Amino acid sequence: MSDELKKYRDQIDWIDEDLLKLLNQRAALASQIGHLKGENTVLRPEREAQILQCMVSNNLGPLPNQSITQLFTEIMSHCRALETQLCVAYLGPSGTFSQEAVEKRFGHAVLSKPCVSIDEVFQTVESGKAHYGVVPVENSTEGAIGRTLDLLLQSPLKVCGEVMLPVHQCLMSRVTDLSAIKRVFSHSQSLGQCQVWLNTNLPNVERVPVGSNTKAILLALEQQEDSAAIASAKAAKSYGIPLLAENIEDDARNTTRFLVIGNQEVAPSGKDKTSLVLSAPNRPGAVYDLLAPLAKNDVSMTKLESRPARSGVWEYVFYMDIEGHQHEPKVAAALVELKQVAAFVKTLGSYPATL
Amino acid sequence: MSDELKKYRDQIDWIDEDLLKLLNQRAALASQIGHLKGENTVLRPEREAQILQCMVSNNLGPLPNQSITQLFTEIMSHCRALETQLCVAYLGPSGTFSQEAVEKRFGHAVLSKPCVSIDEVFQTVESGKAHYGVVPVENSTEGAIGRTLDLLLQSPLKVCGEVMLPVHQCLMSRVTDLSAIKRVFSHSQSLGQCQVWLNTNLPNVERVPVGSNTKAILLALEQQEDSAAIASAKAAKSYGIPLLAENIEDDARNTTRFLVIGNQEVAPSGKDKTSLVLSAPNRPGAVYDLLAPLAKNDVSMTKLESRPARSGVWEYVFYMDIEGHQHEPKVAAALVELKQVAAFVKTLGSYPATL
Repeated sequence: MSDELKKYRDQIDWIDEDLLKLLNQRAALASQIGHLKGENTVLRPEREAQILQCMVSNNLGPLPNQSITQLFTEIMSHCRALETQLCVAYLGPSGTFSQEAVEKRFGHAVLSKPCVSIDEVFQTVESGKAHYGVVPVENSTEGAIGRTLDLLLQSPLKVCGEVMLPVHQCLMSRVTDLSAIKRVFSHSQSLGQCQVWLNTNLPNVERVPVGSNTKAILLALEQQEDSAAIASAKAAKSYGIPLLAENIEDDARNTTRFLVIGNQEVAPSGKDKTSLVLSAPNRPGAVYDLLAPLAKNDVSMTKLESRPARSGVWEYVFYMDIEGHQHEPKVAAALVELKQVAAFVKTLGSYPATL
Repeated sequence: MSDELKKYRDQIDWIDEDLLKLLNQRAALASQIGHLKGENTVLRPEREAQILQCMVSNNLGPLPNQSITQLFTEIMSHCRALETQLCVAYLGPSGTFSQEAVEKRFGHAVLSKPCVSIDEVFQTVESGKAHYGVVPVENSTEGAIGRTLDLLLQSPLKVCGEVMLPVHQCLMSRVTDLSAIKRVFSHSQSLGQCQVWLNTNLPNVERVPVGSNTKAILLALEQQEDSAAIASAKAAKSYGIPLLAENIEDDARNTTRFLVIGNQEVAPSGKDKTSLVLSAPNRPGAVYDLLAPLAKNDVSMTKLESRPARSGVWEYVFYMDIEGHQHEPKVAAALVELKQVAAFVKTLGSYPATL
């Protein structure tokens, strides 16, 4: 071993000794906080968000921000696990984008519990069988996941966080020639995200929506001679099915947004969002009136999504995301005024906005 | 926020700032080592093993050794990724025990590449499409994985490491009553690991060996009315198939040992193993003679496995694991003497023994 190599290795050894001490000191402090009166909650989303923001803004490299975020997510995950192993329900099976979202938010020292439907994710958290749930809520290309919106309206659970996950779709098949494909299986969301590509490259092929992209791969494998599936490259590798085309999503920035749901009101982190559901009274100009309290109080709206109400024909509810926490004075003022003009308002939760 | 909570949080913030600086210093040093002349290898298994051993032996808690090992595995994984993203081939599909073994050894900042067979894992590494491969080599209950042993004999690849993974088997089915089950699907290894339980609880049920435990679950789901599968609890959750019985393996300490294979001769870590294949000349007392050089040089043998040689009827090769590195004087001396008495000796590699 050269002198230079030895010098560097010795320095790494000293650093590792310091890291070891600091990690244990950190875990001991986190544990003491857990035992403080009134601090019986293992996870404080606002606090974790502040720590990650702070680490990224102070990061001088060479480690990229993504590595710093992942490493601190794992460190917090292991410190938490010393107190309680968190259980997180998600839309399975494993290997789906939803599982990636769980790992991105909670790290690997949690128990992740796959569910067969979005309904089951909600039920699992409501019945206390999991501490949190992670559900897809919208895709940047294809729009809202209706079932999640409907369940948010009914459920007593709160929104405790959001996770943004870049999503790249691929065409996969045992068939090697595009012209031999007669049928493409995928989740309707994924089919929707690749419409332009499908119209251009497989214009006359039947598009078959199925329950999950994993199911689509299994069907394509069964009907080997004329079928393909659309799913992630990761899923293709998992099932050993060859990729015919990569990144076929209509928008390269294609991102799915997930919500973290739980029995927790999250305190302000300094950079938050608030999600609401409201309905407008059935009269002209009602929707316009809904937006006035926001403009008046200088609150930005980041999303407005309408959805048929189950209560009557041609009635709608509106899902709205606004910037800021419901405890911030201007947001609180806007909410008070909103309640005066809306027929119905439900605050789904305030939570840290992701970077 | 109480004064006490604030005090603890401030202390955590200071620790996190230090952690951030140290992690980046560590990554910068690792990067400088990567640029040293002759140090063009991203992964030094002996060095990583020494670091993990050192961290665990110096660990005073409260974080358990398992958390320390996982966190340092991730830290090294991200430092490595700054130079080159390692690609690791394994026996897929994802969600198998083999993938868990990859993550346990390499952390999450690697590209893991599932293969459809053990042969494909070897080919993928031999052809340079992956830096390393991870293959199962033996199970504590059921014994050797023959195909891996055969391929080790033929392949130019070296053994660069081992991973021990505790394995718990479960019975799963849509059928809720054991007496309705007519058929159990699983990999032959898993069926073998649960013989006692099957003989006791399902004595008259057909045992159907299939290519993987994932395949077994899919078959059990297809033939819902009378079939079950044996696989891991994790796999059951992934496919949403109910568990009928947990931990049915005959030995609760049931462990699968995996080997890491690659194009690398690993230097001594201070606590190593060496794997060999040898054949005995065809004469009385030949096997006894093979063991004499080990005893004479005070080298412990941790495994001896015989396997039919492809060269002739009733001829055998022997797979042997011994304690120590081939560069240690007593091991080197034993190897010289072994070569004099054996008809054939191939050193598969020396590598760090796992804790």
